[in-house]
Amino acid sequence: MGELYVCSVLVTGANRGIGLGIVRQFLGLPNPPKWVFAACRDPKGQRAQELQNLASKHPNLVIIPLEVTDPASIKAASARVGEHLGGAGLNLLINNAGTAKAKSLDNETLENMSQTYTTNTTGPLLLSQAFLPLLKKAAQESPGSALSCSKAAIINVSSAAGSIEEVYLWDYGQVISYRCSKAALNMLTKCQSLGYREHGILCVALHPGWVQTDMGSSGSQKPPVTVDESVRGMLEVFSSLSEKETGTFLDWEGKVVPW
Amino acid sequence: MGELYVCSVLVTGANRGIGLGIVRQFLGLPNPPKWVFAACRDPKGQRAQELQNLASKHPNLVIIPLEVTDPASIKAASARVGEHLGGAGLNLLINNAGTAKAKSLDNETLENMSQTYTTNTTGPLLLSQAFLPLLKKAAQESPGSALSCSKAAIINVSSAAGSIEEVYLWDYGQVISYRCSKAALNMLTKCQSLGYREHGILCVALHPGWVQTDMGSSGSQKPPVTVDESVRGMLEVFSSLSEKETGTFLDWEGKVVPW
Repeated sequence: MGELYVCSVLVTGANRGIGLGIVRQFLGLPNPPKWVFAACRDPKGQRAQELQNLASKHPNLVIIPLEVTDPASIKAASARVGEHLGGAGLNLLINNAGTAKAKSLDNETLENMSQTYTTNTTGPLLLSQAFLPLLKKAAQESPGSALSCSKAAIINVSSAAGSIEEVYLWDYGQVISYRCSKAALNMLTKCQSLGYREHGILCVALHPGWVQTDMGSSGSQKPPVTVDESVRGMLEVFSSLSEKETGTFLDWEGKVVPW
Repeated sequence: MGELYVCSVLVTGANRGIGLGIVRQFLGLPNPPKWVFAACRDPKGQRAQELQNLASKHPNLVIIPLEVTDPASIKAASARVGEHLGGAGLNLLINNAGTAKAKSLDNETLENMSQTYTTNTTGPLLLSQAFLPLLKKAAQESPGSALSCSKAAIINVSSAAGSIEEVYLWDYGQVISYRCSKAALNMLTKCQSLGYREHGILCVALHPGWVQTDMGSSGSQKPPVTVDESVRGMLEVFSSLSEKETGTFLDWEGKVVPW
Protein backbone atom coordinates (compact mmCIF):
# COMPACT_ATOMS: atom_id res chain seq x y z
CA MET A 1 0.00 0.00 0.00
CA GLY A 2 3.06 2.21 0.21
CA GLU A 3 2.67 2.88 -3.50
CA LEU A 4 -0.81 4.44 -3.27
CA TYR A 5 -0.61 8.17 -3.66
CA VAL A 6 -3.82 9.93 -4.52
CA CYS A 7 -3.62 13.70 -4.55
CA SER A 8 -7.37 14.23 -4.23
CA VAL A 9 -10.29 11.92 -3.50
CA LEU A 10 -14.04 12.37 -3.09
CA VAL A 11 -16.07 9.80 -1.14
CA THR A 12 -19.89 9.84 -1.10
CA GLY A 13 -21.89 8.57 1.87
CA ALA A 14 -18.85 9.49 3.94
CA ASN A 15 -20.43 10.13 7.33
CA ARG A 16 -20.61 6.51 8.45
CA GLY A 17 -19.96 2.86 7.68
CA ILE A 18 -17.60 2.08 4.85
CA GLY A 19 -17.52 5.67 3.57
CA LEU A 20 -16.29 6.99 6.92
CA GLY A 21 -13.78 4.14 7.09
CA ILE A 22 -12.37 5.10 3.69
CA VAL A 23 -12.01 8.74 4.76
CA ARG A 24 -10.24 7.73 7.99
CA GLN A 25 -7.74 5.43 6.30
CA PHE A 26 -6.93 7.92 3.53
CA LEU A 27 -6.21 10.53 6.21
CA GLY A 28 -4.01 8.04 8.07
CA LEU A 29 -1.81 7.10 5.08
CA PRO A 30 1.93 7.85 5.43
CA ASN A 31 1.49 10.05 2.38
CA PRO A 32 -2.10 11.31 2.71
CA PRO A 33 -4.01 13.09 -0.07
CA LYS A 34 -3.78 16.84 -0.36
CA TRP A 35 -7.58 16.86 -0.38
CA VAL A 36 -10.09 14.38 1.02
CA PHE A 37 -13.62 15.47 0.10
CA ALA A 38 -16.16 13.73 2.32
CA ALA A 39 -19.66 14.09 0.89
CA CYS A 40 -22.79 13.44 2.92
CA ARG A 41 -26.39 14.59 3.02
CA ASP A 42 -26.40 16.54 6.23
CA PRO A 43 -22.89 17.69 7.28
CA LYS A 44 -24.26 19.59 10.28
CA GLY A 45 -26.46 16.75 11.57
CA GLN A 46 -25.94 14.39 14.47
CA ARG A 47 -25.00 11.54 12.12
CA ALA A 48 -22.05 13.52 10.74
CA GLN A 49 -20.52 14.16 14.16
CA GLU A 50 -17.57 11.79 13.68
CA LEU A 51 -16.80 13.40 10.35
CA GLN A 52 -16.89 16.83 12.01
CA ASN A 53 -14.49 15.64 14.70
CA LEU A 54 -12.10 14.33 12.06
CA ALA A 55 -12.31 17.60 10.11
CA SER A 56 -11.31 19.59 13.18
CA LYS A 57 -8.04 17.60 13.27
CA HIS A 58 -7.32 17.30 9.54
CA PRO A 59 -7.18 20.52 7.52
CA ASN A 60 -7.02 18.44 4.30
CA LEU A 61 -10.51 17.02 5.01
CA VAL A 62 -13.35 19.01 3.46
CA ILE A 63 -16.96 18.07 4.16
CA ILE A 64 -19.25 18.58 1.16
CA PRO A 65 -23.07 18.61 1.40
CA LEU A 66 -24.46 16.19 -1.20
CA GLU A 67 -27.76 14.49 -1.91
CA VAL A 68 -26.89 11.95 -4.64
CA THR A 69 -30.48 11.79 -5.94
CA ASP A 70 -30.64 15.55 -6.60
CA PRO A 71 -28.97 16.84 -9.80
CA ALA A 72 -28.81 20.41 -8.42
CA SER A 73 -27.05 19.22 -5.26
CA ILE A 74 -24.57 17.22 -7.36
CA LYS A 75 -23.83 20.26 -9.51
CA ALA A 76 -23.28 22.43 -6.43
CA ALA A 77 -20.96 19.81 -4.93
CA SER A 78 -18.80 19.61 -8.06
CA ALA A 79 -18.56 23.42 -8.17
CA ARG A 80 -17.50 23.50 -4.54
CA VAL A 81 -14.88 20.78 -5.01
CA GLY A 82 -13.61 22.59 -8.12
CA GLU A 83 -13.11 25.77 -6.08
CA HIS A 84 -11.06 23.96 -3.45
CA LEU A 85 -8.93 22.28 -6.10
CA GLY A 86 -8.19 25.69 -7.59
CA GLY A 87 -7.54 24.52 -11.14
CA ALA A 88 -6.22 21.04 -10.33
CA GLY A 89 -8.12 17.87 -11.17
CA LEU A 90 -9.78 15.22 -9.01
CA ASN A 91 -8.00 11.87 -9.04
CA LEU A 92 -10.46 9.55 -7.42
CA LEU A 93 -14.26 9.50 -7.22
CA ILE A 94 -15.61 6.82 -4.88
CA ASN A 95 -19.36 6.32 -5.35
CA ASN A 96 -20.05 4.72 -2.01
CA ALA A 97 -23.45 6.13 -0.96
CA GLY A 98 -26.11 3.44 -1.12
CA THR A 99 -29.36 2.25 0.33
CA ALA A 100 -31.10 -1.09 0.94
CA LYS A 101 -34.52 -2.15 2.19
CA ALA A 102 -35.31 -5.73 3.16
CA LYS A 103 -37.99 -6.39 0.55
CA SER A 104 -38.75 -9.76 -1.02
CA LEU A 105 -40.26 -10.88 -4.34
CA ASP A 106 -43.63 -10.81 -2.58
CA ASN A 107 -43.57 -7.36 -1.01
CA GLU A 108 -41.22 -5.34 -3.21
CA THR A 109 -42.87 -2.10 -4.41
CA LEU A 110 -42.66 0.34 -7.31
CA GLU A 111 -41.69 3.13 -4.94
CA ASN A 112 -38.86 1.19 -3.33
CA MET A 113 -37.57 -0.09 -6.68
CA SER A 114 -37.43 3.50 -7.94
CA GLN A 115 -35.86 5.02 -4.83
CA THR A 116 -33.21 2.32 -4.52
CA TYR A 117 -32.29 2.57 -8.21
CA THR A 118 -32.05 6.36 -8.09
CA THR A 119 -29.66 6.27 -5.11
CA ASN A 120 -27.59 3.20 -6.01
CA THR A 121 -27.40 3.39 -9.81
CA THR A 122 -28.48 6.78 -11.16
CA GLY A 123 -26.59 8.61 -8.39
CA PRO A 124 -23.20 7.20 -9.49
CA LEU A 125 -24.05 8.00 -13.14
CA LEU A 126 -24.89 11.64 -12.35
CA LEU A 127 -21.90 12.05 -10.01
CA SER A 128 -19.56 10.74 -12.69
CA GLN A 129 -21.07 13.11 -15.28
CA ALA A 130 -20.68 16.10 -12.96
CA PHE A 131 -17.12 15.29 -11.91
CA LEU A 132 -15.96 14.18 -15.37
CA PRO A 133 -14.26 17.53 -16.18
CA LEU A 134 -12.24 17.32 -12.94
CA LEU A 135 -11.37 13.66 -13.52
CA LYS A 136 -10.29 14.42 -17.10
CA LYS A 137 -8.15 17.25 -15.82
CA ALA A 138 -6.44 14.93 -13.32
CA ALA A 139 -5.78 12.40 -16.08
CA GLN A 140 -4.25 15.08 -18.31
CA GLU A 141 -2.05 16.40 -15.52
CA SER A 142 -0.70 12.93 -14.78
CA PRO A 143 2.34 11.79 -16.80
CA GLY A 144 2.12 8.62 -18.92
CA SER A 145 -0.88 6.86 -20.38
CA ALA A 146 -1.24 3.92 -17.96
CA LEU A 147 -4.51 3.93 -16.03
CA SER A 148 -4.35 4.01 -12.22
CA CYS A 149 -6.09 5.38 -9.13
CA SER A 150 -3.26 7.88 -8.71
CA LYS A 151 -4.09 9.23 -12.17
CA ALA A 152 -7.90 9.24 -12.47
CA ALA A 153 -10.49 6.66 -11.46
CA ILE A 154 -14.12 6.04 -10.64
CA ILE A 155 -14.75 3.35 -8.02
CA ASN A 156 -18.38 2.24 -7.81
CA VAL A 157 -19.01 0.47 -4.52
CA SER A 158 -21.19 -2.42 -5.63
CA SER A 159 -21.96 -5.74 -3.94
CA ALA A 160 -21.68 -9.44 -4.64
CA ALA A 161 -25.41 -9.36 -3.80
CA GLY A 162 -25.62 -7.79 -7.27
CA SER A 163 -23.72 -10.66 -8.91
CA ILE A 164 -26.32 -12.42 -11.08
CA GLU A 165 -24.11 -15.51 -11.07
CA GLU A 166 -23.64 -15.67 -7.28
CA VAL A 167 -26.76 -13.98 -5.85
CA TYR A 168 -24.66 -13.68 -2.69
CA LEU A 169 -26.53 -14.26 0.60
CA TRP A 170 -29.89 -15.07 -1.05
CA ASP A 171 -30.95 -17.12 1.97
CA TYR A 172 -30.09 -14.22 4.23
CA GLY A 173 -32.31 -11.74 2.40
CA GLN A 174 -33.89 -11.40 -1.02
CA VAL A 175 -33.49 -7.58 -1.13
CA ILE A 176 -34.74 -7.53 -4.73
CA SER A 177 -34.47 -3.78 -5.36
CA TYR A 178 -30.94 -3.75 -3.93
CA ARG A 179 -29.74 -6.69 -6.03
CA CYS A 180 -31.28 -5.26 -9.22
CA SER A 181 -29.77 -1.82 -8.59
CA LYS A 182 -26.30 -3.28 -8.01
CA ALA A 183 -26.45 -5.46 -11.15
CA ALA A 184 -27.38 -2.27 -13.01
CA LEU A 185 -24.50 -0.43 -11.31
CA ASN A 186 -22.13 -3.13 -12.54
CA MET A 187 -23.43 -2.56 -16.08
CA LEU A 188 -22.94 1.18 -15.63
CA THR A 189 -19.36 0.56 -14.48
CA LYS A 190 -18.65 -1.53 -17.57
CA CYS A 191 -20.14 1.20 -19.80
CA GLN A 192 -18.11 3.89 -18.03
CA SER A 193 -14.92 1.86 -18.49
CA LEU A 194 -15.59 1.69 -22.25
CA GLY A 195 -16.56 5.35 -22.57
CA TYR A 196 -13.95 6.91 -20.29
CA ARG A 197 -10.89 4.87 -21.22
CA GLU A 198 -9.97 7.38 -23.93
CA HIS A 199 -9.98 10.09 -21.25
CA GLY A 200 -7.50 8.13 -19.13
CA ILE A 201 -10.04 7.25 -16.44
CA LEU A 202 -10.07 3.80 -14.83
CA CYS A 203 -13.50 2.42 -13.74
CA VAL A 204 -14.05 -0.50 -11.39
CA ALA A 205 -16.96 -2.02 -9.46
CA LEU A 206 -15.95 -3.09 -5.97
CA HIS A 207 -17.56 -5.52 -3.51
CA PRO A 208 -16.55 -4.40 0.00
CA GLY A 209 -17.38 -7.74 1.60
CA TRP A 210 -20.18 -8.38 4.05
CA VAL A 211 -19.27 -5.68 6.52
CA GLN A 212 -20.22 -4.79 10.10
CA THR A 213 -22.07 -1.57 9.25
CA ASP A 214 -25.64 -0.45 10.02
CA MET A 215 -26.67 -1.69 6.57
CA GLY A 216 -24.83 -5.00 6.76
CA SER A 217 -25.92 -5.78 10.31
CA SER A 218 -29.68 -5.44 9.90
CA GLY A 219 -30.32 -9.18 10.15
CA SER A 220 -29.77 -11.80 12.84
CA GLN A 221 -26.29 -12.89 11.69
CA LYS A 222 -23.15 -10.89 12.40
CA PRO A 223 -21.24 -9.98 9.23
CA PRO A 224 -17.74 -11.50 9.14
CA VAL A 225 -15.75 -8.43 8.04
CA THR A 226 -15.02 -5.28 10.08
CA VAL A 227 -15.07 -1.85 8.44
CA ASP A 228 -11.32 -1.53 9.05
CA GLU A 229 -10.51 -4.86 7.41
CA SER A 230 -12.72 -4.12 4.42
CA VAL A 231 -11.31 -0.65 3.87
CA ARG A 232 -7.71 -1.79 4.34
CA GLY A 233 -8.33 -4.39 1.64
CA MET A 234 -9.98 -1.89 -0.67
CA LEU A 235 -7.13 0.60 -0.39
CA GLU A 236 -4.72 -2.17 -1.24
CA VAL A 237 -6.87 -2.98 -4.27
CA PHE A 238 -6.81 0.71 -5.27
CA SER A 239 -3.01 0.69 -5.20
CA SER A 240 -2.88 -2.36 -7.47
CA LEU A 241 -5.40 -1.27 -10.15
CA SER A 242 -4.09 -0.79 -13.68
CA GLU A 243 -5.19 -0.78 -17.32
CA LYS A 244 -6.16 -4.42 -17.26
CA GLU A 245 -8.60 -4.09 -14.35
CA THR A 246 -10.71 -1.31 -15.83
CA GLY A 247 -14.27 -2.52 -16.37
CA THR A 248 -13.95 -5.40 -13.92
CA PHE A 249 -15.80 -6.36 -10.72
CA LEU A 250 -13.46 -7.07 -7.82
CA ASP A 251 -13.88 -7.76 -4.13
CA TRP A 252 -12.06 -6.11 -1.22
CA GLU A 253 -9.38 -8.79 -1.43
CA GLY A 254 -8.79 -8.19 -5.14
CA LYS A 255 -10.56 -11.35 -6.33
CA VAL A 256 -12.73 -11.17 -9.46
CA VAL A 257 -16.48 -11.41 -8.75
CA PRO A 258 -18.54 -12.91 -11.61
CA TRP A 259 -21.16 -10.63 -13.16
CA MET B 1 -42.08 -27.20 -32.05
CA GLY B 2 -44.91 -29.73 -32.29
CA GLU B 3 -44.42 -30.41 -28.58
CA LEU B 4 -45.29 -26.90 -27.43
CA TYR B 5 -48.76 -26.79 -26.00
CA VAL B 6 -49.58 -23.83 -23.82
CA CYS B 7 -53.18 -23.64 -22.68
CA SER B 8 -53.04 -19.92 -21.82
CA VAL B 9 -50.49 -17.19 -22.43
CA LEU B 10 -50.30 -13.46 -21.69
CA VAL B 11 -48.00 -11.21 -23.74
CA THR B 12 -47.31 -7.58 -22.76
CA GLY B 13 -46.50 -4.92 -25.35
CA ALA B 14 -48.52 -7.07 -27.75
CA ASN B 15 -49.70 -4.46 -30.24
CA ARG B 16 -46.55 -4.31 -32.35
CA GLY B 17 -43.01 -5.58 -32.94
CA ILE B 18 -41.97 -8.75 -31.18
CA GLY B 19 -45.05 -8.84 -28.95
CA LEU B 20 -47.41 -8.84 -31.92
CA GLY B 21 -45.25 -11.47 -33.62
CA ILE B 22 -45.52 -13.74 -30.58
CA VAL B 23 -49.32 -13.37 -30.53
CA ARG B 24 -49.54 -14.16 -34.26
CA GLN B 25 -47.42 -17.28 -34.06
CA PHE B 26 -49.19 -18.63 -30.99
CA LEU B 27 -52.51 -18.21 -32.83
CA GLY B 28 -51.05 -20.00 -35.87
CA LEU B 29 -49.80 -23.08 -34.00
CA PRO B 30 -51.32 -26.44 -35.04
CA ASN B 31 -52.52 -26.73 -31.48
CA PRO B 32 -53.11 -23.09 -30.46
CA PRO B 33 -53.69 -21.94 -26.88
CA LYS B 34 -57.22 -21.85 -25.52
CA TRP B 35 -56.50 -18.25 -24.48
CA VAL B 36 -54.04 -15.73 -25.86
CA PHE B 37 -54.14 -12.56 -23.78
CA ALA B 38 -52.60 -9.65 -25.67
CA ALA B 39 -51.89 -6.74 -23.34
CA CYS B 40 -51.23 -3.22 -24.59
CA ARG B 41 -51.62 0.34 -23.38
CA ASP B 42 -54.33 1.54 -25.72
CA PRO B 43 -56.36 -1.33 -27.24
CA LYS B 44 -58.68 1.10 -29.04
CA GLY B 45 -55.92 3.26 -30.52
CA GLN B 46 -54.53 3.41 -34.05
CA ARG B 47 -51.42 1.50 -33.00
CA ALA B 48 -53.48 -1.51 -31.90
CA GLN B 49 -55.31 -1.83 -35.24
CA GLU B 50 -53.50 -5.02 -36.30
CA LEU B 51 -54.27 -6.61 -32.96
CA GLN B 52 -57.96 -5.65 -33.39
CA ASN B 53 -57.99 -7.23 -36.87
CA LEU B 54 -56.51 -10.44 -35.46
CA ALA B 55 -59.05 -10.50 -32.63
CA SER B 56 -61.94 -10.29 -35.10
CA LYS B 57 -60.71 -13.56 -36.64
CA HIS B 58 -59.59 -15.41 -33.51
CA PRO B 59 -62.11 -15.81 -30.69
CA ASN B 60 -59.33 -17.18 -28.43
CA LEU B 61 -57.50 -13.82 -28.60
CA VAL B 62 -58.43 -11.38 -25.83
CA ILE B 63 -57.03 -7.87 -25.81
CA ILE B 64 -56.29 -6.56 -22.32
CA PRO B 65 -55.65 -2.89 -21.53
CA LEU B 66 -52.43 -2.61 -19.54
CA GLU B 67 -49.99 0.10 -18.54
CA VAL B 68 -47.02 -1.82 -17.05
CA THR B 69 -45.85 1.16 -14.98
CA ASP B 70 -49.20 1.50 -13.18
CA PRO B 71 -49.90 -0.91 -10.29
CA ALA B 72 -53.68 -0.25 -10.50
CA SER B 73 -53.72 -1.08 -14.21
CA ILE B 74 -51.75 -4.29 -13.56
CA LYS B 75 -54.20 -5.30 -10.84
CA ALA B 76 -57.17 -4.66 -13.13
CA ALA B 77 -55.53 -6.68 -15.92
CA SER B 78 -54.93 -9.70 -13.68
CA ALA B 79 -58.55 -9.56 -12.46
CA ARG B 80 -59.80 -9.44 -16.04
CA VAL B 81 -57.59 -12.34 -17.13
CA GLY B 82 -58.72 -14.31 -14.08
CA GLU B 83 -62.36 -13.84 -15.09
CA HIS B 84 -61.73 -15.16 -18.59
CA LEU B 85 -59.87 -18.16 -17.23
CA GLY B 86 -62.84 -18.96 -15.00
CA GLY B 87 -60.93 -20.79 -12.31
CA ALA B 88 -58.10 -22.16 -14.45
CA GLY B 89 -54.51 -20.96 -14.16
CA LEU B 90 -52.25 -18.98 -16.52
CA ASN B 91 -49.42 -21.06 -17.98
CA LEU B 92 -47.17 -18.48 -19.54
CA LEU B 93 -46.45 -14.83 -18.75
CA ILE B 94 -44.28 -13.12 -21.35
CA ASN B 95 -42.96 -9.78 -20.10
CA ASN B 96 -42.19 -8.25 -23.47
CA ALA B 97 -43.16 -4.57 -23.09
CA GLY B 98 -40.06 -2.40 -23.09
CA THR B 99 -38.68 1.00 -23.91
CA ALA B 100 -35.36 2.48 -25.05
CA LYS B 101 -34.04 5.98 -25.62
CA ALA B 102 -30.75 6.65 -27.41
CA LYS B 103 -28.92 8.32 -24.52
CA SER B 104 -25.18 8.20 -23.90
CA LEU B 105 -22.94 8.48 -20.83
CA ASP B 106 -22.83 12.21 -21.53
CA ASN B 107 -26.52 13.00 -21.92
CA GLU B 108 -28.31 10.32 -19.91
CA THR B 109 -30.73 11.87 -17.39
CA LEU B 110 -32.33 11.04 -14.04
CA GLU B 111 -35.78 11.14 -15.63
CA ASN B 112 -34.91 8.75 -18.43
CA MET B 113 -33.06 6.38 -16.09
CA SER B 114 -36.16 6.24 -13.86
CA GLN B 115 -38.71 5.86 -16.66
CA THR B 116 -36.75 3.16 -18.46
CA TYR B 117 -36.20 1.20 -15.26
CA THR B 118 -39.85 1.39 -14.26
CA THR B 119 -41.01 0.04 -17.63
CA ASN B 120 -38.27 -2.51 -18.30
CA THR B 121 -37.48 -3.83 -14.82
CA THR B 122 -40.12 -2.88 -12.26
CA GLY B 123 -42.96 -3.62 -14.73
CA PRO B 124 -41.98 -7.32 -15.05
CA LEU B 125 -41.62 -7.53 -11.24
CA LEU B 126 -45.10 -6.12 -10.61
CA LEU B 127 -46.69 -8.19 -13.41
CA SER B 128 -45.18 -11.35 -11.97
CA GLN B 129 -46.46 -10.48 -8.48
CA ALA B 130 -49.97 -9.82 -9.78
CA PHE B 131 -50.17 -12.96 -11.93
CA LEU B 132 -48.43 -15.22 -9.40
CA PRO B 133 -51.70 -16.71 -8.07
CA LEU B 134 -52.75 -17.65 -11.62
CA LEU B 135 -49.31 -19.03 -12.45
CA LYS B 136 -49.28 -21.08 -9.23
CA LYS B 137 -52.72 -22.42 -10.09
CA ALA B 138 -51.50 -23.50 -13.55
CA ALA B 139 -48.51 -25.25 -11.97
CA GLN B 140 -50.74 -27.08 -9.48
CA GLU B 141 -53.14 -28.19 -12.23
CA SER B 142 -50.32 -29.62 -14.31
CA PRO B 143 -49.28 -33.23 -13.61
CA GLY B 144 -45.69 -33.99 -12.58
CA SER B 145 -43.06 -31.78 -10.99
CA ALA B 146 -40.84 -31.02 -14.03
CA LEU B 147 -40.73 -27.34 -14.95
CA SER B 148 -41.84 -26.32 -18.44
CA CYS B 149 -43.60 -23.58 -20.39
CA SER B 150 -46.64 -25.87 -20.75
CA LYS B 151 -46.85 -25.99 -16.96
CA ALA B 152 -46.05 -22.49 -15.68
CA ALA B 153 -43.40 -20.00 -16.72
CA ILE B 154 -42.31 -16.38 -16.71
CA ILE B 155 -40.34 -15.27 -19.76
CA ASN B 156 -38.64 -11.90 -19.36
CA VAL B 157 -37.72 -10.47 -22.74
CA SER B 158 -34.27 -9.05 -22.04
CA SER B 159 -31.44 -8.16 -24.41
CA ALA B 160 -27.79 -9.03 -24.98
CA ALA B 161 -27.38 -5.25 -24.75
CA GLY B 162 -27.92 -5.94 -21.04
CA SER B 163 -25.13 -8.53 -20.90
CA ILE B 164 -22.39 -6.93 -18.78
CA GLU B 165 -19.90 -9.35 -20.32
CA GLU B 166 -20.84 -8.66 -23.96
CA VAL B 167 -22.20 -5.08 -23.92
CA TYR B 168 -23.74 -6.06 -27.29
CA LEU B 169 -23.68 -3.35 -29.98
CA TRP B 170 -21.85 -0.76 -27.85
CA ASP B 171 -20.48 0.97 -30.96
CA TYR B 172 -23.99 1.13 -32.36
CA GLY B 173 -25.41 2.93 -29.34
CA GLN B 174 -24.54 3.42 -25.69
CA VAL B 175 -28.22 3.41 -24.52
CA ILE B 176 -27.10 3.48 -20.88
CA SER B 177 -30.53 3.45 -19.24
CA TYR B 178 -31.61 0.54 -21.45
CA ARG B 179 -28.49 -1.53 -20.74
CA CYS B 180 -28.71 -0.91 -16.99
CA SER B 181 -32.44 -1.78 -16.92
CA LYS B 182 -31.87 -5.05 -18.80
CA ALA B 183 -28.94 -6.09 -16.56
CA ALA B 184 -31.29 -5.45 -13.64
CA LEU B 185 -34.04 -7.46 -15.37
CA ASN B 186 -31.61 -10.35 -15.70
CA MET B 187 -30.97 -10.16 -11.96
CA LEU B 188 -34.73 -10.08 -11.33
CA THR B 189 -35.13 -13.18 -13.51
CA LYS B 190 -32.48 -15.02 -11.50
CA CYS B 191 -34.18 -14.01 -8.24
CA GLN B 192 -37.59 -15.10 -9.56
CA SER B 193 -36.15 -18.46 -10.59
CA LEU B 194 -34.86 -19.00 -7.03
CA GLY B 195 -38.06 -17.79 -5.37
CA TYR B 196 -40.63 -19.41 -7.66
CA ARG B 197 -39.04 -22.81 -8.24
CA GLU B 198 -40.89 -24.23 -5.23
CA HIS B 199 -44.15 -23.11 -6.85
CA GLY B 200 -43.34 -25.01 -10.05
CA ILE B 201 -42.71 -21.88 -12.11
CA LEU B 202 -39.86 -21.72 -14.62
CA CYS B 203 -38.21 -18.30 -15.14
CA VAL B 204 -35.95 -17.38 -18.05
CA ALA B 205 -34.46 -14.18 -19.53
CA LEU B 206 -34.54 -14.19 -23.32
CA HIS B 207 -32.59 -12.18 -25.88
CA PRO B 208 -34.76 -11.94 -29.02
CA GLY B 209 -31.86 -11.02 -31.31
CA TRP B 210 -31.36 -7.68 -33.00
CA VAL B 211 -34.73 -7.50 -34.66
CA GLN B 212 -36.33 -5.39 -37.40
CA THR B 213 -38.81 -3.56 -35.15
CA ASP B 214 -39.37 0.16 -34.58
CA MET B 215 -37.11 -0.06 -31.53
CA GLY B 216 -34.37 -2.10 -33.23
CA SER B 217 -34.36 -0.06 -36.43
CA SER B 218 -33.88 3.40 -34.95
CA GLY B 219 -30.28 3.73 -36.19
CA SER B 220 -28.59 3.73 -39.57
CA GLN B 221 -27.92 -0.01 -39.77
CA LYS B 222 -30.61 -2.56 -40.61
CA PRO B 223 -31.00 -5.26 -37.95
CA PRO B 224 -30.21 -8.76 -39.24
CA VAL B 225 -33.22 -10.65 -37.82
CA THR B 226 -36.87 -10.38 -38.90
CA VAL B 227 -39.67 -10.48 -36.35
CA ASP B 228 -40.86 -13.81 -37.79
CA GLU B 229 -37.42 -15.43 -37.51
CA SER B 230 -36.91 -14.16 -33.98
CA VAL B 231 -40.34 -15.32 -32.79
CA ARG B 232 -40.07 -18.70 -34.51
CA GLY B 233 -36.77 -19.21 -32.69
CA MET B 234 -38.22 -18.08 -29.36
CA LEU B 235 -41.20 -20.44 -29.60
CA GLU B 236 -38.81 -23.28 -30.31
CA VAL B 237 -36.84 -22.26 -27.22
CA PHE B 238 -40.08 -22.23 -25.17
CA SER B 239 -40.80 -25.79 -26.25
CA SER B 240 -37.35 -26.93 -25.12
CA LEU B 241 -37.19 -25.26 -21.71
CA SER B 242 -36.97 -27.51 -18.65
CA GLU B 243 -35.82 -27.60 -15.05
CA LYS B 244 -32.18 -27.03 -15.97
CA GLU B 245 -32.80 -23.81 -17.89
CA THR B 246 -34.65 -21.98 -15.12
CA GLY B 247 -32.68 -18.91 -14.06
CA THR B 248 -30.65 -18.76 -17.27
CA PHE B 249 -30.24 -16.13 -20.00
CA LEU B 250 -30.77 -17.53 -23.50
CA ASP B 251 -31.01 -16.06 -26.96
CA TRP B 252 -33.69 -16.73 -29.60
CA GLU B 253 -31.61 -19.63 -30.93
CA GLY B 254 -31.30 -21.26 -27.52
CA LYS B 255 -27.67 -20.28 -26.92
CA VAL B 256 -26.60 -19.15 -23.44
CA VAL B 257 -25.84 -15.42 -23.19
CA PRO B 258 -23.27 -14.51 -20.49
CA TRP B 259 -24.52 -12.25 -17.69
